[in-house]
Amino acid sequence: MSETRSTIGQRKADHLALCATDEVAFRNKTTLLEQVRFVHDALPDLHADALDTSVVILGKRLRAPIVIAAMTGGTEEAARVNRELARIAEERGYGFGLGSQRAMHVRTETAGTYEVREVAPTTLVLGNLGVVQARAMSTNEVDDLLGKIAADALCIHLNPAMELVQPGGDRDFTGGLDTIARLVRDLRVPVVVKETGCGISGSVGTRLRSVGVTHVDTSGAGGTSWVAVETKRAEAAHDAPARALGEALWDWGIPTAVSVGMLAPLGFETIVATGGIMTGLDVARAIALGASAAGIARPALKALTAGGRDGALAFFDAVERELRAAMLLSGSANVAALRKAPRVLGSELRTWLDQA
Amino acid sequence: MSETRSTIGQRKADHLALCATDEVAFRNKTTLLEQVRFVHDALPDLHADALDTSVVILGKRLRAPIVIAAMTGGTEEAARVNRELARIAEERGYGFGLGSQRAMHVRTETAGTYEVREVAPTTLVLGNLGVVQARAMSTNEVDDLLGKIAADALCIHLNPAMELVQPGGDRDFTGGLDTIARLVRDLRVPVVVKETGCGISGSVGTRLRSVGVTHVDTSGAGGTSWVAVETKRAEAAHDAPARALGEALWDWGIPTAVSVGMLAPLGFETIVATGGIMTGLDVARAIALGASAAGIARPALKALTAGGRDGALAFFDAVERELRAAMLLSGSANVAALRKAPRVLGSELRTWLDQA
Amino acid sequence: MSETRSTIGQRKADHLALCATDEVAFRNKTTLLEQVRFVHDALPDLHADALDTSVVILGKRLRAPIVIAAMTGGTEEAARVNRELARIAEERGYGFGLGSQRAMHVRTETAGTYEVREVAPTTLVLGNLGVVQARAMSTNEVDDLLGKIAADALCIHLNPAMELVQPGGDRDFTGGLDTIARLVRDLRVPVVVKETGCGISGSVGTRLRSVGVTHVDTSGAGGTSWVAVETKRAEAAHDAPARALGEALWDWGIPTAVSVGMLAPLGFETIVATGGIMTGLDVARAIALGASAAGIARPALKALTAGGRDGALAFFDAVERELRAAMLLSGSANVAALRKAPRVLGSELRTWLDQA
Amino acid sequence: MSETRSTIGQRKADHLALCATDEVAFRNKTTLLEQVRFVHDALPDLHADALDTSVVILGKRLRAPIVIAAMTGGTEEAARVNRELARIAEERGYGFGLGSQRAMHVRTETAGTYEVREVAPTTLVLGNLGVVQARAMSTNEVDDLLGKIAADALCIHLNPAMELVQPGGDRDFTGGLDTIARLVRDLRVPVVVKETGCGISGSVGTRLRSVGVTHVDTSGAGGTSWVAVETKRAEAAHDAPARALGEALWDWGIPTAVSVGMLAPLGFETIVATGGIMTGLDVARAIALGASAAGIARPALKALTAGGRDGALAFFDAVERELRAAMLLSGSANVAALRKAPRVLGSELRTWLDQA
Ligand SMILES: Cc1cc2nc3c(=O)[nH]c(=O)nc-3n(C[C@H](O)[C@H](O)[C@H](O)COP(=O)(O)O)c2cc1C
Ligand SMILES: Cc1cc2nc3c(=O)[nH]c(=O)nc-3n(C[C@H](O)[C@H](O)[C@H](O)COP(=O)(O)O)c2cc1C
Ligand SMILES: Cc1cc2nc3c(=O)[nH]c(=O)nc-3n(C[C@H](O)[C@H](O)[C@H](O)COP(=O)(O)O)c2cc1C
Ligand SMILES: Cc1cc2nc3c(=O)[nH]c(=O)nc-3n(C[C@H](O)[C@H](O)[C@H](O)COP(=O)(O)O)c2cc1C
Repeated sequence: MSETRSTIGQRKADHLALCATDEVAFRNKTTLLEQVRFVHDALPDLHADALDTSVVILGKRLRAPIVIAAMTGGTEEAARVNRELARIAEERGYGFGLGSQRAMHVRTETAGTYEVREVAPTTLVLGNLGVVQARAMSTNEVDDLLGKIAADALCIHLNPAMELVQPGGDRDFTGGLDTIARLVRDLRVPVVVKETGCGISGSVGTRLRSVGVTHVDTSGAGGTSWVAVETKRAEAAHDAPARALGEALWDWGIPTAVSVGMLAPLGFETIVATGGIMTGLDVARAIALGASAAGIARPALKALTAGGRDGALAFFDAVERELRAAMLLSGSANVAALRKAPRVLGSELRTWLDQA
Repeated sequence: MSETRSTIGQRKADHLALCATDEVAFRNKTTLLEQVRFVHDALPDLHADALDTSVVILGKRLRAPIVIAAMTGGTEEAARVNRELARIAEERGYGFGLGSQRAMHVRTETAGTYEVREVAPTTLVLGNLGVVQARAMSTNEVDDLLGKIAADALCIHLNPAMELVQPGGDRDFTGGLDTIARLVRDLRVPVVVKETGCGISGSVGTRLRSVGVTHVDTSGAGGTSWVAVETKRAEAAHDAPARALGEALWDWGIPTAVSVGMLAPLGFETIVATGGIMTGLDVARAIALGASAAGIARPALKALTAGGRDGALAFFDAVERELRAAMLLSGSANVAALRKAPRVLGSELRTWLDQA
Repeated sequence: MSETRSTIGQRKADHLALCATDEVAFRNKTTLLEQVRFVHDALPDLHADALDTSVVILGKRLRAPIVIAAMTGGTEEAARVNRELARIAEERGYGFGLGSQRAMHVRTETAGTYEVREVAPTTLVLGNLGVVQARAMSTNEVDDLLGKIAADALCIHLNPAMELVQPGGDRDFTGGLDTIARLVRDLRVPVVVKETGCGISGSVGTRLRSVGVTHVDTSGAGGTSWVAVETKRAEAAHDAPARALGEALWDWGIPTAVSVGMLAPLGFETIVATGGIMTGLDVARAIALGASAAGIARPALKALTAGGRDGALAFFDAVERELRAAMLLSGSANVAALRKAPRVLGSELRTWLDQA
Repeated sequence: MSETRSTIGQRKADHLALCATDEVAFRNKTTLLEQVRFVHDALPDLHADALDTSVVILGKRLRAPIVIAAMTGGTEEAARVNRELARIAEERGYGFGLGSQRAMHVRTETAGTYEVREVAPTTLVLGNLGVVQARAMSTNEVDDLLGKIAADALCIHLNPAMELVQPGGDRDFTGGLDTIARLVRDLRVPVVVKETGCGISGSVGTRLRSVGVTHVDTSGAGGTSWVAVETKRAEAAHDAPARALGEALWDWGIPTAVSVGMLAPLGFETIVATGGIMTGLDVARAIALGASAAGIARPALKALTAGGRDGALAFFDAVERELRAAMLLSGSANVAALRKAPRVLGSELRTWLDQA
């Protein structure tokens, strides 16, 4: 058990280090968000300073439709990252997602590395657990885990591709939907079902809706490849078969734009578009396809790692500035209007959406 | 106020200098005019010297469907450019657009830099004002500004993208349509509504038609990027945020071919296709999509800067020669016939036109 | 007049020299024949040595559906080329086209350079005249010109693009259809209407059919660009405007595959697919689109220039071998079957054919 | 006759040597399997170790839907390869195809090089004969040839493209369908009709069905080009015409994905998708298009040549691991489910399937 614990810690450390580089990006697959082209409005009846970028997500109003997506927890370094980013979320009015609380469950002494309420008292804070871990826990245990960090909601993450590549990863994915159904029904906070870089399909969305899920996070393909992360770790560990499998699955997944487009008609209350969101234009494009807000993981981490708090702030400034520009130049006074802004989709994106 | 004045003067000087290079072109977006392919007519029943390239625009007959598009005014250099190009317009029978008369309005002593009637007594001369500036002026003030230069019509330019990137640029774009409606109704000369490099959409076109506008200038994407111009200025001024926003919006806009295609069915009397027109083939393609004439800004300036009056003349010779060749080889005796010449559109252009 | 005569001679010499290189090929346009993909027949009920490649064209049976297309005449060098290629045509059972007989008309002493009957007594020999030249001649004069060389038919060539670029080229293209109508009606031999590298459209085809034309030669875009040839000559003559126009029109024209596809449904008796035919696969593809036979000009000249008679023979051997392979592997016992062989068209070719 | 014999031996040796390199791959044509993109299932209700990859083919259950496709026989080297790969097939539960038994028929003393039953007693073993050779043999002779190696079925291979290029190759392909009809009717074991790298079309499939064929192997384009193999041999033999024809036909054929898609609706019991299968993802994609199993020839040989038995085992391990991953991540518990897994086809593949 102590081995498992230190294993988790080491993996978390590996993840942060690898994700500070660009070696874990998708290779030959993009989000396809670049194929969403807004039709310029030359005559917007708008004041640039009076645009309303706010959205209400999971009962809380965000000043801008941005969620800092789940990344870390469990180590000192993780604690620092969580607190820095949560503080920015509080100041800027973004949502904030904690990394998987599995470490916190296994080693309760790491709970403090997840505590961000001190710096983010009013922020929308999202807890996080893998569906396989959640399956093994009682609802009370989960409630407890969330209570300790005063989370507003729980992200249940799905990551079968990554697990398959990870040496010693989970192999039993049965009962996932039942677990989600139970938590949606019994948990005191709302549940967001979230992928981690391979996207949620229309078919999975339909199954989720059938058990009452109303919040999803696409975490689609085109940004960080979690398969890539585990492939890098397999490479370092000289595990040739895992590495080979990882190379083959590196680009597996549904592009983020496609995942948003697939989920949009299914009646979800919240669709967070995560996966490869790098700019404010990406945020705008995801919203135009039907997202409620956009989630950003690795680009935020990179900005923080490279430039500290100021670097992260500058990154988010740029994202917001671009988002507002896209709103103004598409004639959208607020996020609801942006969702209906005229746009032209490229043929690759249409091919996906027509068939899927 | 004197600062504002010298600021305008400096900006104008910067613009001319930057636009003599190709660093301010769109990067990854073209006009899509190259996707208009004429179907060769091997058996035209035509004499190459009897083709009629003339068009009537805004009540005046142009010998060729070419407008030298709005560029400058307000400085000595600007005066020289205006006079050289206006003289060519007179000799060749083109239309001629003056640059924004804002400078002339703010510093009346610069009025002379806009006066081209001496060299262009019969030319179709177009005045120019930004919609935001026009909003702040009475109709009489505008009439006065136009009267001083004996303009045949007023171009009201729209440029929200550029303003957003420009440090200290306009941020209040409200009331644009009302301003245009007022001027269309009350001004003594006709009004042309003109973009400056991002294009006019079908939706904007419809709004313009609804307040009585009958003349438009697409000034679409694919040629000069005004966002690029301001980005270069931001770079020189070490304004990192403005520069970053500019980089993100560099290619924003509706390709010229798309803008023409969108506006063609809306019943405008005049559609000037400006934005990235570089050759006589481009002129012909724009007309085949529904334009009345084509506007050329920076390529004319570049020819003048690089080769003086002779260089500019040679440039226009080449444009006309190509236009006539395209007419002959598509079996078009005149511009009206060219508008209906058989042609094949590439798939990217069709994708835009089908969806927009 | 003697100047005109030596001018023609010089031009013919220039043409042969330039066409021995690849500098006069289209640059960014292909024949689109490469987008015709046969569907392999793994089980052809055929003997490779029993395939029938013969076709009857203009009343004569060719052993293979190949015409050596019009190239030259008027100089000693031209005479040599004509005789070498005509001898091969006779031996191999191909059709053979003479170059424009304008030189022979202007300088009757050059008639001998067109005489190929000595070496090609039974070959299908095609005379050649530009439509503009033919317009100025009486039907008797034309008959006479053809009689001297014992031609089986007359190719009337159309080449407005080339003429526009050629300094001193024709500019009056009126009356072309009338001229053709007269010759079709009154001439003792059949008339083939032929382009020279820009292709014949469906619309031109319809006009030709309306005056009784039943034989055409596409000579479409993608092979030799005659505009390019004249552009190279303008370059050598330091004629900058002609050169610039030539650069702009270099790739003008209808790809050969498109021209064949456009003409196929119009009820012509003969469609010779010329323009960029380089291989036996190209011959097969053109036939599958509806051609009766394929014409080859410059590739034959190049083979002869580079390798003499043996080189030319080897070239045609390869073409025939490939054609027979394509027939066998598409399950086609003869040319009529090949015309119906299953095939898949690429999207660029379909785009052209759908719209045109 | 002894010459013919040693010729066959030499050819077999050449084949193995050339196929150990990548110089005999298709150049500008792929299998198009890469255009089959599975739609990720983030929530598969599956255990990775409980996936059922087995299929029943030709009456025998394979543990995984993999057939080691026909390659060799007739030489000592061939015997070694056959035994090594057959042993792996037995251990792993794959099908195993022997190379053409022509050598064994011509030189009965080479029969031993085809005997694999000692190492593969329960394996699905496929005999192999070219349709042209089979035509010349009585059904009894064929039965005899199969009996000697205790084959479960006979692959009749079709390879007209290769024969055309091969100096001295077959030229008479008549009577193929009759030969197949006879063997299907009279032979004691089932017949699989198999191409060798150019694919089987829908039209050939229909003809095969009409004479009672129920098993096919696509052996489509995009993997090993047998034309390429013979072109390399022609090159070595300084046979310029054969080499030129080979270069022209190098990429001839129907991409494997297209062949599978064409055959899927025709009611075959077995469709083995061979030709360019390199990975487990390829196996999965072929099955999703309708294949029963996938055949692998040269990649298996290469793995064996480069890494011996261990190399081959590692190669197949990787293939199986990827196949299982694709099954799990597309939510497919077994091969039947995989055949119906949601997927998106790229436009090139759709173009082929729509037209063919
Ligand atoms: C360092 C790092 C750690 C992550 N850890 C988690 C996690 O614990 N739980 C989770 O749901 N997603 C996790 N993710 C996935 C992200 O939330 C996100 O879905 C994915 O990275 C795609 O977004 P991106 O392209 O913006 O990075 C992690 C991502 C990164 C970069
Ligand atoms: C140096 C320069 C100055 C310009 N100034 C104005 C202006 O004052 N008013 C205006 O309506 N457009 C102005 N424009 C925009 C042009 O009229 C035109 O819409 C745009 O440059 C696209 O055309 P092009 O690609 O041919 O340059 C200017 C363009 C240039 C190059
Ligand atoms: C050297 C040369 C001379 C030619 N002269 C004539 C001519 O006199 N009359 C004519 O109809 N076409 C002429 N052509 C055009 C060819 O007949 C043919 O239409 C064109 O070259 C396209 O075929 P290719 O791509 O096989 O060269 C000539 C072509 C070449 C290469
Ligand atoms: C070395 C070698 C020898 C082959 N010999 C035969 C053969 O005798 N009979 C046959 O039907 N196919 C033969 N093939 C063709 C293969 O069975 C297969 O159809 C083709 O190579 C395409 O599969 P691949 O891309 O996996 O190599 C041979 C292939 C190779 C590489």
